[in-house]
Order: sequence, then C-alpha cells, then structure tokens
Amino acid sequence: MTIKGSDTKKLNRRLRLGMVGGGRGAFIGAVHRIAARLDDRWELAAGALSSNPERARLSGRDLLLREDRIYGDFNEMARRERRLKDGIDAVAIVTPNHAHAAAARAFLKAGIHVICDKPLTTTRREADQLARLAHESGLIFAVTHNYTGYPLVRQARAMVKAGDLGEIRVVQVEYAQDWLATKLEETGSKQAEWRTDPARSGPAGAVGDIGTHAFNLAEFITGIEVISLAADLHTFVAGRRLDDNAHMMLRFASGAQGMLWCSQVAAGQENGLRIRVYGEKGGLEWHQENPNVLIHSPLGEPPRLIRRNGAGASEVAQAASRIPAGHPEGYLEGFAQIYTDVAEQIAARLEEREPNPYALQVPTVDHGVRGVRFIEAAVRSSQRKAAWVPL
Amino acid sequence: MTIKGSDTKKLNRRLRLGMVGGGRGAFIGAVHRIAARLDDRWELAAGALSSNPERARLSGRDLLLREDRIYGDFNEMARRERRLKDGIDAVAIVTPNHAHAAAARAFLKAGIHVICDKPLTTTRREADQLARLAHESGLIFAVTHNYTGYPLVRQARAMVKAGDLGEIRVVQVEYAQDWLATKLEETGSKQAEWRTDPARSGPAGAVGDIGTHAFNLAEFITGIEVISLAADLHTFVAGRRLDDNAHMMLRFASGAQGMLWCSQVAAGQENGLRIRVYGEKGGLEWHQENPNVLIHSPLGEPPRLIRRNGAGASEVAQAASRIPAGHPEGYLEGFAQIYTDVAEQIAARLEEREPNPYALQVPTVDHGVRGVRFIEAAVRSSQRKAAWVPL
Amino acid sequence: MTIKGSDTKKLNRRLRLGMVGGGRGAFIGAVHRIAARLDDRWELAAGALSSNPERARLSGRDLLLREDRIYGDFNEMARRERRLKDGIDAVAIVTPNHAHAAAARAFLKAGIHVICDKPLTTTRREADQLARLAHESGLIFAVTHNYTGYPLVRQARAMVKAGDLGEIRVVQVEYAQDWLATKLEETGSKQAEWRTDPARSGPAGAVGDIGTHAFNLAEFITGIEVISLAADLHTFVAGRRLDDNAHMMLRFASGAQGMLWCSQVAAGQENGLRIRVYGEKGGLEWHQENPNVLIHSPLGEPPRLIRRNGAGASEVAQAASRIPAGHPEGYLEGFAQIYTDVAEQIAARLEEREPNPYALQVPTVDHGVRGVRFIEAAVRSSQRKAAWVPL
Amino acid sequence: MTIKGSDTKKLNRRLRLGMVGGGRGAFIGAVHRIAARLDDRWELAAGALSSNPERARLSGRDLLLREDRIYGDFNEMARRERRLKDGIDAVAIVTPNHAHAAAARAFLKAGIHVICDKPLTTTRREADQLARLAHESGLIFAVTHNYTGYPLVRQARAMVKAGDLGEIRVVQVEYAQDWLATKLEETGSKQAEWRTDPARSGPAGAVGDIGTHAFNLAEFITGIEVISLAADLHTFVAGRRLDDNAHMMLRFASGAQGMLWCSQVAAGQENGLRIRVYGEKGGLEWHQENPNVLIHSPLGEPPRLIRRNGAGASEVAQAASRIPAGHPEGYLEGFAQIYTDVAEQIAARLEEREPNPYALQVPTVDHGVRGVRFIEAAVRSSQRKAAWVPL
Repeated sequence: MTIKGSDTKKLNRRLRLGMVGGGRGAFIGAVHRIAARLDDRWELAAGALSSNPERARLSGRDLLLREDRIYGDFNEMARRERRLKDGIDAVAIVTPNHAHAAAARAFLKAGIHVICDKPLTTTRREADQLARLAHESGLIFAVTHNYTGYPLVRQARAMVKAGDLGEIRVVQVEYAQDWLATKLEETGSKQAEWRTDPARSGPAGAVGDIGTHAFNLAEFITGIEVISLAADLHTFVAGRRLDDNAHMMLRFASGAQGMLWCSQVAAGQENGLRIRVYGEKGGLEWHQENPNVLIHSPLGEPPRLIRRNGAGASEVAQAASRIPAGHPEGYLEGFAQIYTDVAEQIAARLEEREPNPYALQVPTVDHGVRGVRFIEAAVRSSQRKAAWVPL
Repeated sequence: MTIKGSDTKKLNRRLRLGMVGGGRGAFIGAVHRIAARLDDRWELAAGALSSNPERARLSGRDLLLREDRIYGDFNEMARRERRLKDGIDAVAIVTPNHAHAAAARAFLKAGIHVICDKPLTTTRREADQLARLAHESGLIFAVTHNYTGYPLVRQARAMVKAGDLGEIRVVQVEYAQDWLATKLEETGSKQAEWRTDPARSGPAGAVGDIGTHAFNLAEFITGIEVISLAADLHTFVAGRRLDDNAHMMLRFASGAQGMLWCSQVAAGQENGLRIRVYGEKGGLEWHQENPNVLIHSPLGEPPRLIRRNGAGASEVAQAASRIPAGHPEGYLEGFAQIYTDVAEQIAARLEEREPNPYALQVPTVDHGVRGVRFIEAAVRSSQRKAAWVPL
Repeated sequence: MTIKGSDTKKLNRRLRLGMVGGGRGAFIGAVHRIAARLDDRWELAAGALSSNPERARLSGRDLLLREDRIYGDFNEMARRERRLKDGIDAVAIVTPNHAHAAAARAFLKAGIHVICDKPLTTTRREADQLARLAHESGLIFAVTHNYTGYPLVRQARAMVKAGDLGEIRVVQVEYAQDWLATKLEETGSKQAEWRTDPARSGPAGAVGDIGTHAFNLAEFITGIEVISLAADLHTFVAGRRLDDNAHMMLRFASGAQGMLWCSQVAAGQENGLRIRVYGEKGGLEWHQENPNVLIHSPLGEPPRLIRRNGAGASEVAQAASRIPAGHPEGYLEGFAQIYTDVAEQIAARLEEREPNPYALQVPTVDHGVRGVRFIEAAVRSSQRKAAWVPL
Repeated sequence: MTIKGSDTKKLNRRLRLGMVGGGRGAFIGAVHRIAARLDDRWELAAGALSSNPERARLSGRDLLLREDRIYGDFNEMARRERRLKDGIDAVAIVTPNHAHAAAARAFLKAGIHVICDKPLTTTRREADQLARLAHESGLIFAVTHNYTGYPLVRQARAMVKAGDLGEIRVVQVEYAQDWLATKLEETGSKQAEWRTDPARSGPAGAVGDIGTHAFNLAEFITGIEVISLAADLHTFVAGRRLDDNAHMMLRFASGAQGMLWCSQVAAGQENGLRIRVYGEKGGLEWHQENPNVLIHSPLGEPPRLIRRNGAGASEVAQAASRIPAGHPEGYLEGFAQIYTDVAEQIAARLEEREPNPYALQVPTVDHGVRGVRFIEAAVRSSQRKAAWVPL
C-alpha cells in the first residue's frame, strides 16, 4: 500500500497548473481542482476562469490566485504564462465542449501541456486538427476520461491484457442517469442548459456527455477498437433538442460484439456506469457506483470478489490506490470533512463570526475521553468474566 | 450540490497546519495530509514528523516543508511556532497512541488548536487530565473519529435526532478486519508491531484500535451514551499480548440495548465497520465499505435506499458532500489519478528521466479523437435507421 | 399471507394431469411435476413419457403411474384418456421444441386442456395453425413462460398498469448464461445436444431457448407489444450450428424503446434473467436470481425495496405467494429436504438397506433437546444479570 | 444436477404421513404439507388437525383426507393408525410448542416415526424424558430445524468439517425479525398470541421461537457444541410477557467464541437469519434471505461466491438441490404458480363458476405464438445485417 504525496524528489517543487473555465457556478472545474490537489503534485497558479472578465476576476480571488495570474482571456494567459519564469507547466481546460478546441490550440502553441475535459471537441474535423497539432507539438495532451483512473478499471485492463479472460467475446457497457428525466434545462439549471444546447454541446446529448465515457471504458479495458456500430438515438423529453437516450450494437476489431446503452432519463439511475466483459475463459464486471469491487468469474469456478488493494489486486491497481483495502475511497473524503470542519471553526474565530453549525459535529477531546473510558471498561469487564461495568 | 474549496473569503488565506508524527513509513499521517488538502482550506506549514531527528528532516523535505519549519522535536516546534507571525493555526498529532498526550499538552500550552488521532491516550487518567487542560485552554481540540465525517453517518444522526426512528431500542455495531489473523507483528510490520505492544498501544488491542471507532459511531448516531457494558475480550493468535477479538453487550442511558463486536482476526473482513440501529418506528443500516447508501426501513413500509446527495438526503448530509449523487466518493480519487499521472509525465520530462510506466495509461488526445468519432458515428447511424456505420 | 393447498371445495378432488415427454434423463419434465405437486391441486395420472416405448414404461413406473395409464405413444394416450371416466383433465407437453405441435394438436382434438413448454413450435406457420386450433377448441392452452409466475413479476406488471411509472420509455432486458461457453454438445450432454440442433430446436439457439423468456417478460410486465426489432445474432463457439449470443434493439407500439441481450456464453452468468423498466415517473428493476426483491425508484425519491409479501407488496403479488416475507421461496425446498431425508430413512428401514448418508443430517430429538436447554440457559443467564451459565 | 421425485424403487409406494395440528388458520402445518409433497415421497393419509373436533373435521376435508382418517384426537389417531394395514409411516406434529410432548409420546408408543416442530418442548424436563423415550423406541425422531435443509448450509458444514476454515475462532449468528415490533398479540393475530403466551410458548419468546434456530445453525455448521453462554433478554414492547429481543455471548467447547442476537422488534428485518463463521484459515457467510450464495473467504485470497449447484458446490450440497445453479429455489414456486393458475381455470369450468381473476395471467397459446414470431424476426433481422424488421 502506498500513500501518495509530493514525491518529486529531484524537482523539489509542485507543478504549476493553470485553468480555463471552472469559475463560480461551474461544476467540473472544482472537481479538477480537487483532483489536482489530492496527491500534492500540483498547485493552482493561474486561471482564465470565465469568459466573463468580472466573473473571472472574482472566481480567481475565491481560489486565492495571485492578482497578476488571474486572466480575463485564455489567449492572454497562454501568451503571458509562456514567458514567465514560474509560468504554468500545464493547463486544464474545463469549459463547455464547444470551447475546448480554441483554448487547447492556444496553449499547445504556447508550448504548454494540456489536460482537456471530454468530449475533446464538438466536431470530428476539429478533433482531427487538434490531434495533429498536439502530436506535432510533442506536448503531453491528456483527456479526462477519468474513469480510467480507478484502480480496479486498470486492474481489469491488465487482466484482459494478461489473457485471464481468453479471447474477448461480448462487451456490455452502460451509463445511465436520470437527472434529465424532466425538462431541467427550462428551470435555470446551467448544467442542463449547455448540455442540451447543440451549439455548446455538439451534435449529441447523452451520447456525447456520458456515452463517450462508456465507449472509452470499453476500449480501455478490452484494449480492442470498435470498428462499427448501429445506433438508435432518441429524445424522450418533448422539445429537447438533443438525444437523451441511445441504444447501440457494437462490433470490435477482434470479432467481439457488444451493446452500449446510455441514458439521462432512466428514473432511479444516478450515475450508473457499468461494464461487463466476457471472454472464452472468464468474465469481469465492474460498477462505478461500487468501484471497490471487481467481480472475476473464471469459467467453471466460483466468482471472486477482487477488492481494491485487497487480496488478488494487481500491482497496477495498487499503483493507483491510496489507502488499504476495505477503506472505500470515500474514506478520504470522510476524513477530509473532519479537517474542513476544524478549519471552519478556526476561521470563524479568526474572522469573529459564528461557524457553520454543521462544522460543530466534529468529535472533540470529550469524545476522545469517552473512547479511553470505553477501552478501560471493556478490559475491566473482561477481566471479571464479562461482568457488567459502568462507563 | 456543493463543490468545496477555499471559500474563506474574509480570511483570504489557507490555514496553516503543523504535524507531529507521520514521517516516512507511517500510514495515517499521509491520510491526514490528504484529508487536510482535499478542500483546500489548509496548507502544511511545519512538522516534527518523527522522533528520530534525521528521519524528521528527510520526511520534512519529502513534503516540501521550508527548512526552518522542519523540527526534530515537538516541544521545540510548539515553542517556536507560537511566536512566528505566520505560525501554525493548528497541529495534527498522528503518532502512536502513547505519545498523543505529551504532544497535545505541549501545543495546548502554546495556544495552538489540536487535531489528535484516536484513541486519545492510553490511560483514563491521562485522558481526563488532557480534557481538563483542553477545556481550560478554550482551544479547539478535535479527535479524528473520522467515520463521523461521512455524509450519511451525519444523516443517520440527524434522522435519529429528528425522531424518524422513534425511541431507540437496539444497536448492533461491529468493526471486523482480518489483517492480524496471523502473527504479523513478527514479520516486520511496523503497523502491527506497535498496535500489539501494550507499551505503545495501551491496555487493549482490537478494542482500542477499532472498537473505539465502533463505540464512537454508536454514540454519535444515536446521541445516547452507553452506561454499562459486559465484555469478553480474547486473544486468538498465540503469543500476542493484546486482545484481537472482543464481544460486548451494551446498555444505553435511555434503556436501549446493544451488541458490539470488534475483531482483527475475522478472515475475509477487510474493514467491516457496520452499524444498525432499530427504534420503535424504523431501522437504519450503514456500512462503511459501501458508504454511499443508508438503508432506512420505516416500520411497515418498504426499505428505502438513501444515497449520498441523492433523493432523500438531508441538508446535513449534503453539507458534507462534494460531488453529485451516484458519483461514489472514490470518484475524486479516480479523477486525481489522471492528474497525478500527468504530473508524473511532466516531472519525468523536467527531470530527464523515464516516467513511471503506470502513468502512461492516462487517456490522450487520440482517445479524445476516438470519442468525437464515436459521437459522430452514433449520430450518423441513428439518422440512417440504425444502419451499421464504420468508426 | 396465504398458504395454498387443495382448496377446490366443490370439486372435491385433485385435477388429473397427463404428461408427454419428461421421462428418465429429462430435466424440465421433473420441474413440471414438482410445480404441479406444490400446491396440491394436481395428481399425475397418465404419461407418454418418452418416444422410446421401453423408456416410457420404465419412466412411468418410476413415477408410480398405474400400468394402464402408461403409454408408449401420445396419440394413443389422447384417444384413450378422452374416453376414460377418470381421464386426465389436462396434458403437460415437455418434449424438445420440434415435437410440441403434433402432441398439442392431438390433445386439443381429444378435448383435453394443454400446458405446453416454450417455445411453442419451431416455425411460425405451425405456431399460427396451433393457435387457430386452440382458439377454435375453446380449451385452455397455457405456455409455460414460467417467469410470469413470480409474485414480484406480477407486481411489476400491476404497477405499470396502474400507472406508477407513467408512460414507459425504456426497457432493458437480458438473459445470460454460461453453460454453453464451451462445446458441451460434443460431450454427451443431452440438454446441450438438442438445444444446438436446428432439427429439434428450430431456427434459433439462445434466442429460442432463453431469448423468448426475456421477450415474453418484457411484454408481460409492460403490457406493450414490441413492433419491430433489429437483431445481431452470433455463434461464438466454433462449429456450433445455432446462435449462442444475440444483441437486439427493440421498438414498442407505444413509442418505448428497448434492448435485449441473450447469451449462453457469458462466463460467470448462471441464469441471469434481469429486467429494468423506466417510465416518466419512475423505474423498476427485477432480477430472477434474487427474485424476492423488486426495486422501485420513483423519480426524485429514494429507491424502495419491495419484498415478496412484505411491506408494499400488492394483492396480486400476495396471491402468488405461499410464505411470509423474508422467507425466500427456497425456504420451501429447504423444508422439503428435511421431509425427504426422513422419507429416505424410513424407506431404507422398510427396504432393509442403508439410507443415503446425506439423509442422516436431519436434526433429531437430541437437537431438539439442545434447543430446549439453550432456551433454559438463556433465560437463567438473563435472570442473573447475564452471568455465564453452562449449557 | 438431480431432479428429485418418488424414486423409492423397491418400496413402490409413497410413505404415508399423519399430521397433528395444522388445521384451518394455522401457518406452519401448510408449510409442512408442501414440504412433504415437494419431492413426492409422502402422501398425507391421516390427520388430527385441530384440538377442536369440528375444525379438525373441516380441515381434514379441505385436505381431501378420507373421512375415516380424519381424527378429532391425536391419541385415537395413534391407537388406530398403528393397527391399520395402510397406517401412517410417520406423524408430523405441528401444534403450538406446549402440545408437542404429549403428542410425540403417543406416537412413539404406537411405534410410529415422529417429525416434530421446534422447540421440542417447553421445559427441559419434558425434553429429556421425550429424548429418552425416543431413543428407547428405536424410532426415527426428526425435529424440523428446517434451515439445516438448505444446500449451502450443508455445504458450509461440510467445509468446516473438511478443515477448509482451520480451527474455528469466532461465530456470529443472528436471527432478526420485526413482526412483533408492535403489540400484535392484541390485534387478534393467532400467530402472535400463542408465541407471546408463556403457557403455550414456554419460558422464552424470541429466544424460543427463532433464537433456537440460530443456535441450532451455529452448532450444525461448526459441529462444535456451545458450552456456556451469557444472555441479556429484554422485552421492548410494554406489557408483553416474554422476551422480544436477546443478546448473548457464547463459548464453544473448542475454545471458539461467539455472539448470538435474536429479535422480533428489529424494524426492517423480515426474516434475517444470518451466520458468519471465522477460522484460522478462512471465513464463511450465509444469509437465509439470499440462500443461494455462500461467501467463502480464504485468508489472503479474494472472497468466492459459491452458488447452489454452481461451480464450487460440493456433493453434499448438490444432493440437497433440485434445480440447476442460477435458478434460485423460488424458481419452483414460480413454475408452480402457472400450474396452480391453470388448475384454477379448469376447476372453475368444472364447477361452473368464474375463476379467480389472478389465475388469468397465465401465458396462453397466443403468447406462445408471439414467442415464435420473435424468434423468426430475430433470425430474419440478423440475416439482413440487423435491419429493422416488424414483428
């Protein structure tokens, strides 16, 4: 088990990250920032956080950026950062889909590595151009198909590659949600608005927003490319301009076959990304909503529950884990909550205000005392043949 | 849904954290650091990271601490930090159990807030003294019973408090692991060594290490104190000096009754902290290994699956959440892995070395192009009545 | 809760069942007989249990049929039984698929009700003819799409009909097995042989054997007919003559859309019949391998676990249940095992032989005594403040 | 896979069963009758079905007993049946607890084998006397601790015996229900009335009714006797005269330790009988509400899901199974429902009445035709490269 951290020994510094998009009111930008922070190898150093200059400025201050590293425009940011001695090492592009391409080009031209949200662009032509530019630049260009970062997804890929399943026959992949089951885009939801707007989201709705993740996961785990598909896209919510449900049949280069379902109108499904892969010698199943278990069914043997960092986990999975088996990865968030609540209490004192009442739930020294008393009572009771003892 | 971050507007800075313990080879220290980092309200500013001065120094450098904030001794750290203008706001004490008390006293006397790992101390006398000192100081003193930070644990507590279960009758709580099923302490495991050593761990083994968490959780969720217990502690691994399994019957102040089981020899249990609470009007069940679901069974109605940040989640639970329902909290770690892998690639270039091969799994612009092609193929196929189209 | 039984008050007798097929070595015939016996409304009275007359005779004796009711030929059976005063009320046809039609015709012509295994016939023409004949006869003609007999499947249908889900949008149905993942038909498996033989199984393999169940379930629960489909059938096991995997996209009369997957090569899947139905107002999920739970997700509310005969179960589901909630239906089989083991012990004595050793596991009077001692010890210990008492 | 049936070749008849108790309004008697019927080795031949002679007579007619085999008194039944040429081979005693002993004595004295419900008696003295009598008689005396009849419970026992878990350390067993969470005994529930009445139920409530099952299961699977216990019984529902919840700590003869919880007031628990056994080399978990899976966790290896009759199932488990893996045992009940519905339709015609409307849900020849059309459409579509075809 490895606990990660800023282990860049030689470099002796954190890498500097810039961000395009992700200002006030955005969702995925904040996720990118947490992700960058978690293992302590990045610091947020600059941002063009909104296409609205005023919002960009306020958002930058929220994030404690230095004033001279808050930009109202990504082109300016790219031009200036490339010349700074402590300029950003990489930029994260977290705008709506249609704005990815221009921003990515600007930073590639400035010689800055790019981390770009998916889908890459809204048209195939733009995508191809961007890929060409990226390859010519020699720069690192990552696309945040983030589900490939799960330890057991990487384990699944390694197992397929190692031949544990034999030749792959069938792939069943699905990504189902229900948050667009009603016409949310007319209620003021910014997230729903741009995702259902062809101008900002591109030619597809659910297919672009989540179908791409399912597709990427299928190719990532199997290591085999899809060569053709037959698709039935549909819009169930009246008046919506993009698909909100799609059924597809897939054929893979190797002869494997598959199905893909993506939906944003499947009532009761929150974020149901699930993949099942069946080969000649066994099957694998992984579900994003229960990501700490990979079910491996060798043909003719009982299914095995491979748990993150637990027995049966491979080196590649362990390399992507932070905490021991049994601690679901939410463990870190639960732990973080304690720190955040304490920060809130301290900040409230420094700012001479009342803390958020929720922050007062943090266990105190008195709970610590209870724990010590509990231990002593347990030991004393057991020494007396399990007699009842007061606490 | 709230994405958290450094939202201390007035303060306009992150809080400064010092750490005692948690140097090279330690486990929980790294968890504390990630936890402190996650919501961006803390920066690690100082450390006495080991009782061995040389290891303390090296560990401090690993963490990119400033040389003058790396201490070989926590007393020195407490004395000096209190006088610095940008001295630490709080200290995290993450040493083995026996060393908590002295360190905590030092920082309380220096007027610095304390975050201390559990169990608070190894004796009840020390615990009581420390509590007195903490109360007199007026400082914040948090104990990291970290499981109270889970959104749905807080929701459970709120539901009990709101009377959703009626009067509480029965509490079943357990915390079962298997990592000490063999004599691991003789194989060089530092974690196993101190936990089975009475001098460092105190009078109890499993009871102190994990039983305290179970006990704390039972009192936290019910809001009722245990007033007496009958305990049967046992050591199953021959030659071990502390208990590795314990059975207890509990009586609560309100008349409720309960059972508590903790074990570190339960083969197949990784980190099985689980609690069930039954009242006159309903029951609740929460399992740490599947922390995104709280099962609520109103008497005479179908059980309901309350999901973190999903339908039915209360305000208090939402206040402790970072990401939307359906994204299990491991989502952030998966996402972070992408950033960490990109950092590794960039750092390798800057340091002119080969990157860790695992870091090369990150999706690239080419995967982005595949995604865009997928979208276009799907739309095209669907427009042609689901004809097969190549990709 | 209703415990069923022979409650045909007026009739004052059990109905008489004949059987075609289902002799020694057959599988589904024995299932039909248990099914007929369970609720005590049928007695097996006649049989043409094999097309091989000698096997038919031996099979009839196995089942304790009267010699004059054992037939070597179903036509003879139909002719004779129609004239008997205590002739059969109905016939169960449990042969391989290709033989269904001729047998069914014979009994319809004899004025005898028919219970026929699925798929009805191997060609559409035969099916249509048979249906015409059945309708003209006015006789009862049941097809054993047995999954429609599950209480929670009937509940699901009732909920859709009642509008609990609003207008149906999406149906996901699948039936996956792995028993044909290798070329079992060349190893002497009678079950595999006829199912992969076009002459006996008809034009489809997995599609006919299990896909029809999935299809029937989708129409049964939704109450909506499929009007068109696009199908991708494939044979993965080299040399097999019929499909062993199929992917389909479905369109329903109402505008709903769906996907259907059936497979007999999905390693790790034993009998994975699963259906999910999503409507405007909610979703339903049912899994045959865990048939005692129906998950109902009203849009915007926590999912509910409706359990057979439990809270939330409707009248229609209760009408199809035998035992209280929480007793999974396997409860009856577990209970039956005790009776069967006792029968084996008694029969062994009567036949002066050794009983099957497995039958000796049945609890005896001594276990009964242990239980009484346990009760008394528990009461005594509790009366003494939970003191330890010997047993 | 074995499909069971009347395979008593030499005997050439079914065994004859008598029943004491189990008349109109009773619950467990009907379960015993289904259990006896399932494998076709018994026929119900005689009954003293109620202590009320009129109810006994009506109940006997309900069950189609011959008039001369319906008794108003079990003593008379014992005396007469022993003299009949076709007298009963065994008697099933299914009365409330307090009446078991006298009935059992009567049949033992008549030389008739006994199958008796649990708990055996209401006092230890009676139990010991009865055991003595049973042993002296040389007759078979089975007690229906029915959970020992589950295939995977037998597999668990066999695995422990074979040493798969090494020396047993810890046993956690529980049986939790919620049906007595309110004062049901005052609402006219016959089941609740006698179970909470010390005169009919004996000195314990939940402990006697369900705790005995948990206790029996623990001893059955481990093969080790409990030698002492410490128990905390409690009555949560005001005014109830017997315990409705109990917590116990157990010590086994081998040095193993355990906990036992039984409750009838645990809101949300329907019939939660669950056992977990941990040994030096591995752990086992089985849950009655999901009885088709046994989780085996060899220490240091991924947990395995052993499924009834599936991969990894032992001979002893297969001997107690009726249907293939993946078909949960409820499969038979679902199948039976089809037969019962058809019987209802036929009986209604014979009796010239309307059938129960629920019985009309049975699939007909038209559904059979739909199935055949589905197959043909699927094949046709696939032959045309998955073109859409109408159905």
